[in-house]
Amino acid sequence: MTKKVMILPGDGIGPEIVEQALAVLEVASEKYNLGLSFEQGLIGGSSIDAHGEPLTDEALKAAGECDAVLLGAVGGPQWDTLEREIRPEKGLLKIRSGLGLYANLRPAILYPQLADASSLKPDVVAGLDILIVRELTGGIYFGEPRGIKTLENGERQGFNTYVYRESEIERIARSAFEAAQKRNGKLCSVDKANVLEVTVLWREVLDRLAPEYPDVELSHMYVDNAAMQLVRAPKQFDVMVTGNMFGDILSDAAAMLTGSIGMLPSASLNESGFGLYEPCHGSAPDIAGQGIANPLATILSAAMMLRYSLGMSEAADAIEAAVSNVLELGLRTADIHTDGYQKVSTAEMGAAVVAAL
Amino acid sequence: MTKKVMILPGDGIGPEIVEQALAVLEVASEKYNLGLSFEQGLIGGSSIDAHGEPLTDEALKAAGECDAVLLGAVGGPQWDTLEREIRPEKGLLKIRSGLGLYANLRPAILYPQLADASSLKPDVVAGLDILIVRELTGGIYFGEPRGIKTLENGERQGFNTYVYRESEIERIARSAFEAAQKRNGKLCSVDKANVLEVTVLWREVLDRLAPEYPDVELSHMYVDNAAMQLVRAPKQFDVMVTGNMFGDILSDAAAMLTGSIGMLPSASLNESGFGLYEPCHGSAPDIAGQGIANPLATILSAAMMLRYSLGMSEAADAIEAAVSNVLELGLRTADIHTDGYQKVSTAEMGAAVVAAL
Ligand SMILES: CC(C)[C@H](C(=O)O)[C@@H](O)C(=O)O
Ligand SMILES: CC(C)[C@H](C(=O)O)[C@@H](O)C(=O)O
Repeated sequence: MTKKVMILPGDGIGPEIVEQALAVLEVASEKYNLGLSFEQGLIGGSSIDAHGEPLTDEALKAAGECDAVLLGAVGGPQWDTLEREIRPEKGLLKIRSGLGLYANLRPAILYPQLADASSLKPDVVAGLDILIVRELTGGIYFGEPRGIKTLENGERQGFNTYVYRESEIERIARSAFEAAQKRNGKLCSVDKANVLEVTVLWREVLDRLAPEYPDVELSHMYVDNAAMQLVRAPKQFDVMVTGNMFGDILSDAAAMLTGSIGMLPSASLNESGFGLYEPCHGSAPDIAGQGIANPLATILSAAMMLRYSLGMSEAADAIEAAVSNVLELGLRTADIHTDGYQKVSTAEMGAAVVAAL
Repeated sequence: MTKKVMILPGDGIGPEIVEQALAVLEVASEKYNLGLSFEQGLIGGSSIDAHGEPLTDEALKAAGECDAVLLGAVGGPQWDTLEREIRPEKGLLKIRSGLGLYANLRPAILYPQLADASSLKPDVVAGLDILIVRELTGGIYFGEPRGIKTLENGERQGFNTYVYRESEIERIARSAFEAAQKRNGKLCSVDKANVLEVTVLWREVLDRLAPEYPDVELSHMYVDNAAMQLVRAPKQFDVMVTGNMFGDILSDAAAMLTGSIGMLPSASLNESGFGLYEPCHGSAPDIAGQGIANPLATILSAAMMLRYSLGMSEAADAIEAAVSNVLELGLRTADIHTDGYQKVSTAEMGAAVVAAL
């Protein structure tokens, strides 16, 4: 029984960091007899260059036929002047939506070895370990109607629709309740129910489901307060769940609390546990090709993939331990480097993780 | 020539803090011959209790006939179970919209005397001075259609509309460009133009206006990145401008960077400079009536009112200097108190500012 992984390196630093993650997966596959096989595909700018669109229907189909997808990152300034419909980001939105990857899990974890990197005071963030569960295939990202139209008086008007139906809210809520059960049993749902009707429904559905998860303590918080509380006292949170747009904002803020976004993986799952795994950071075109990008978020994304989509948690544990190990050894890529540590390249970091495995 | 100020104490700590600000204004009026007169009105829960609605049309009209409005805060748990249409927050939304107060100015300033209060490292926030310009009468807060409907399959769907027309974007953009001209000449416009069409139009309008303000350097940032950058390196910003919803989130995050949200005033202005002034913080029902709330944000809001709406900048300067003074003297309300300083009550703090005047 082999498991097939679709590898989508993408743009910018994507190919460099994915290369290291792939090397780690290959060694893990051998050592733990995982029988992994790999296929490569195009997404984002690299697909635009080859096919004129950021994700072809064939690539989407091929990804869906694999057992999991590992993605680098997409986007870069050379594609920023294209019309919006064929920009790199559209490839990301298309694969999320096309494969039904509604549950986006974004951990914000402070590695004790990297505590200094945070812009927050050590006592505020020491031991930070939050999981943000973001709805990824609905909300204002996909709502219709949308567009820019000309009004009768000749001026233009832009509009988007923030929309959720009960079933969409219910399935992401269940993902979040279940995640909280496996963690510290605290779930904070973030909305703007004092202003937005769509989030009144959101809150209602969460409240309706809560009795089914008596071991989870559910609370609600307005999004403006949540942004404040993340800055003030982030350790009050265990799991947070929210819609697509608020999740985009809060997960990035939460990731940045750690000061080392180059360390943070993410998973985007569908109903059956199939998932796409990618680092939280972007394609960093400014440092692409220099061999200095941090591959650890992608390597940790690969570990998440083994655990969540492929049922290979032993190997996942081993990869995560190997990453911890190289940090202990003092190896640091430029983004997390501070005085007294050994600065290494993308390839050296990848090789060190392989060696630690 | 007297100038009439509408005083809306609101709920929770609102009445206590407004009382102190009023005392400061009365002394300033006398000392600087401002000829201020005051009228009191109801908003929020206190208006619901008296009239069954969070802001009566008469109160709105009376406020509009004054020269400026000073507001405390609205809301509290006792009104949270009412239907949304008659909750305290609706009073706030009604006065903003009813008086056309589209330009919400929210400074995030770190008082050097309070540098310790921040959860961020001192070097990250020392000297922080950002102004967030938030559009306040449009966007998804007011967009139609909105509501919760039942679909054919019987499940419910919630929906809101994020909408801006060019003229709405243009007027808030001009407020922001002008604010940047008076400050350090840097304006960062925040949008999500890689996903939301309404913010594509937003970005276009900002770019179109930029040549009219050659002394302002305009940049654009996606909202998720802006949330990250506020956490990572907030001092990179001078003025930020964004829509109603993003502005709600980012201005609260920015305020919390200072660690002393009890110090931050805000102004909401219409086309002609008429404005409503209120502290950035909420009604804090948990500490209401205890006489421990910090009145300084409201006092500083009163100073902003003198400067922006009443053309009395000398008195405004004097009030701000008096606030600085009492901080120098070591007076602190509970929210900003740390070891070695003198803990004072709401009334003592107000009296100290009056004395310093
Ligand atoms: C690139 C962009 C479309 C995307 C999003 O907004 O979802 C990114 O910010 C993310 O969070 O994965
Ligand atoms: C109370 C609420 C409606 C309001 C808003 O969202 O605008 C508040 O959060 C604010 O920022 O003034």
